[in-house]
Amino acid sequence: MHEDRLWQDLMALAEITDPARPYTRRCFTDRFLEGRRWLEQRFTQAGLATRLDEGGNLIGRLEGREPGLKALVIGSHSDTVPSGGRFDGPLGVLAGLEVVRLLRDDAIALRHPLEIIDFLSEEPSDYGPSCIGSRAMTGFLDAGMLELRNPSGEPLAAAMVRMGARPERLTAPLRYDIAAFLELHIEQALVLEQGGIDIGLVTGIVGIARVEIEFTGSADHAGTTPFHLRRDALVAAADLVMRVRRLGEQFARTRNGYFIATVGRIEVHPNASNVVPGSARLVVEARAEHAAHLDAFLDALSGASLAAASGARVERTAFKGISRSEPSPCSERLRAHLAEAATSLSLKTVSLASGAGHDAGFMGRIAPMAMIFVPSREGKSHCPEEWTDPPQCAAGARVLRAAVQRIDVDPAFG
Amino acid sequence: MHEDRLWQDLMALAEITDPARPYTRRCFTDRFLEGRRWLEQRFTQAGLATRLDEGGNLIGRLEGREPGLKALVIGSHSDTVPSGGRFDGPLGVLAGLEVVRLLRDDAIALRHPLEIIDFLSEEPSDYGPSCIGSRAMTGFLDAGMLELRNPSGEPLAAAMVRMGARPERLTAPLRYDIAAFLELHIEQALVLEQGGIDIGLVTGIVGIARVEIEFTGSADHAGTTPFHLRRDALVAAADLVMRVRRLGEQFARTRNGYFIATVGRIEVHPNASNVVPGSARLVVEARAEHAAHLDAFLDALSGASLAAASGARVERTAFKGISRSEPSPCSERLRAHLAEAATSLSLKTVSLASGAGHDAGFMGRIAPMAMIFVPSREGKSHCPEEWTDPPQCAAGARVLRAAVQRIDVDPAFG
Repeated sequence: MHEDRLWQDLMALAEITDPARPYTRRCFTDRFLEGRRWLEQRFTQAGLATRLDEGGNLIGRLEGREPGLKALVIGSHSDTVPSGGRFDGPLGVLAGLEVVRLLRDDAIALRHPLEIIDFLSEEPSDYGPSCIGSRAMTGFLDAGMLELRNPSGEPLAAAMVRMGARPERLTAPLRYDIAAFLELHIEQALVLEQGGIDIGLVTGIVGIARVEIEFTGSADHAGTTPFHLRRDALVAAADLVMRVRRLGEQFARTRNGYFIATVGRIEVHPNASNVVPGSARLVVEARAEHAAHLDAFLDALSGASLAAASGARVERTAFKGISRSEPSPCSERLRAHLAEAATSLSLKTVSLASGAGHDAGFMGRIAPMAMIFVPSREGKSHCPEEWTDPPQCAAGARVLRAAVQRIDVDPAFG
Repeated sequence: MHEDRLWQDLMALAEITDPARPYTRRCFTDRFLEGRRWLEQRFTQAGLATRLDEGGNLIGRLEGREPGLKALVIGSHSDTVPSGGRFDGPLGVLAGLEVVRLLRDDAIALRHPLEIIDFLSEEPSDYGPSCIGSRAMTGFLDAGMLELRNPSGEPLAAAMVRMGARPERLTAPLRYDIAAFLELHIEQALVLEQGGIDIGLVTGIVGIARVEIEFTGSADHAGTTPFHLRRDALVAAADLVMRVRRLGEQFARTRNGYFIATVGRIEVHPNASNVVPGSARLVVEARAEHAAHLDAFLDALSGASLAAASGARVERTAFKGISRSEPSPCSERLRAHLAEAATSLSLKTVSLASGAGHDAGFMGRIAPMAMIFVPSREGKSHCPEEWTDPPQCAAGARVLRAAVQRIDVDPAFG
């Protein structure tokens, strides 16, 4: 009864929640540590040796038959967003645990060590950055990030210490001994559900560029300022929202690989019904599987924003990159193993990009990496309604297990 | 030295300000009452009999030669917005006072009584409505408005009592004995300055319609939701902003009379850079000299907002009128007197609409009404930089004086 075992774990971990707003188990809280203690116990019961690394990641390890081989690693995260769901994160950790138990059920001993990792704070926290644990493991948690403070003034480094990390030791990647990294996650979108597909084979994790654009016009009287004298910053902003949509659709249609662009934030001043908007600030986000497409989009965006400013006779007073992460392609060899594993289990697959960031994105910096998705009902995520059926969760764990057995004997991975 | 006398009054009243943020003399404050005491003294010194009416308006009256005639009235307001200017309001009251003194200088006694009115709270206050005194005088301050409270919970009626009004008596228009009403105001726009024109002859005061429009889509993950599955409320809102601009320009170009439309307010939820906007709320404002153009625009706006919703595959979940005032045309006969008065003084004039609301708009409900504008430097208003040169202020007062003398002997006004 594998389905039951994984499902019961998922539901048991979900019970460890802020009771006032299920399902909330944010990193850096006592509730999170309570979840971690439960998880560590489950790791131990499954025969894993557990430890916390310097980045505050909980690691369960099963040694392999052949000493000296690098580890096969399955990981995701047990923290949630506020009022989040039961699957985003926990499924990837608990499916890894289930792989350990499935192998043991069948008395299979791998050549390689097998590790299951619960990464620290994959979700955005009050300290700012997301993917803190996987950044720490791969050498991307820099000193500036460690000094970021939450609204109460606690530095991230101190918060990590509370979680058992040793941030003072984070001066380089923590691991050079990983042969392959796999992550199972819910899709958080509609492609699998709408296509009746069991498993999404991820081609790569998008890079994300965010740009803040400000238009400055003149906050004039909305009654007395005729059209030809207006310098309306909202007209420029609205024009740019439409241009970003058209440009994004064109990139998605004509370029190879996944591309998406969004204007999610807009602020207008003074934002009064009887005043011509004097300034408007937008954040434009682009996500792409290929860094060159991000570059090309940012170029086009610069031109589009200047044209929007000129059309409304306002100034483009800011065009500022506020963050950028690079795309992380999945290992083709690992993808092939995952595809064959799914096929051997008669599961229907599709190749698709991950438009969301994941710990796997950072892990791809230090090891071959691949991901699979299982369906999300109605594409919902980061909300209490987040749902994946028990057989769909179990199918994901079975694909991981079959893939791990294939990778274990592939000489490419040692 | 008429210029000096009016100018010295303007500067003296401006000194009665919240010292921390000149020039602030908001209604319902002790500072406002201090200004009123100064003004009442100046009225008395000029030979006017003063009183407060039931609406809290300060009235200075000079009786005429012929008993039983209705009054010629000049009025505006002495209250300011926070960090306002020295001209918006006070100029119209003090120019009225200057007319009284100019007539006395030349030993001219009018046939009609002449009144100078400082209307209560023309500017928006913490209680909500603007033009409180002129609404009260004309029967447009209803019981519901009197119950509106400021953030501290004080009802408007109680605040008016503090200012000396008797709101319990406001059951009908206070006056049926006004032969003509004139108001001088700064333009608050650029037409006069850019055209090198001394006096704007106002054709009418616009009616204002405000509509709140809400689009509701779906707040989906900005990374994982492809374009064809998006229901982006900001895309609909941006489309509507552009449509309102085009529609407004078309109305302004093709319809007789002044027309302007603005989207000044927009709010987007959740307004996060990585979430497709799930809802957007805008306020669209239209101002027109003719009520039929407001009606036609609202019809077109309804169609445009449905088209914008459909284009972005979102719902238009609200289309709600939040306020409407009707246009108030100026009396053609009074305008003719004002035009001839300006011409007799060799002043350059232009006819233009008032895109802003004024006490004159309400006074037009109970008496023939007309307005003139003098230039505003750089069109600035409601800010400390608000400025009109001393000779420009004096020219306005001289036009009022000459017009009053003409109206006084025009049989159409009794």
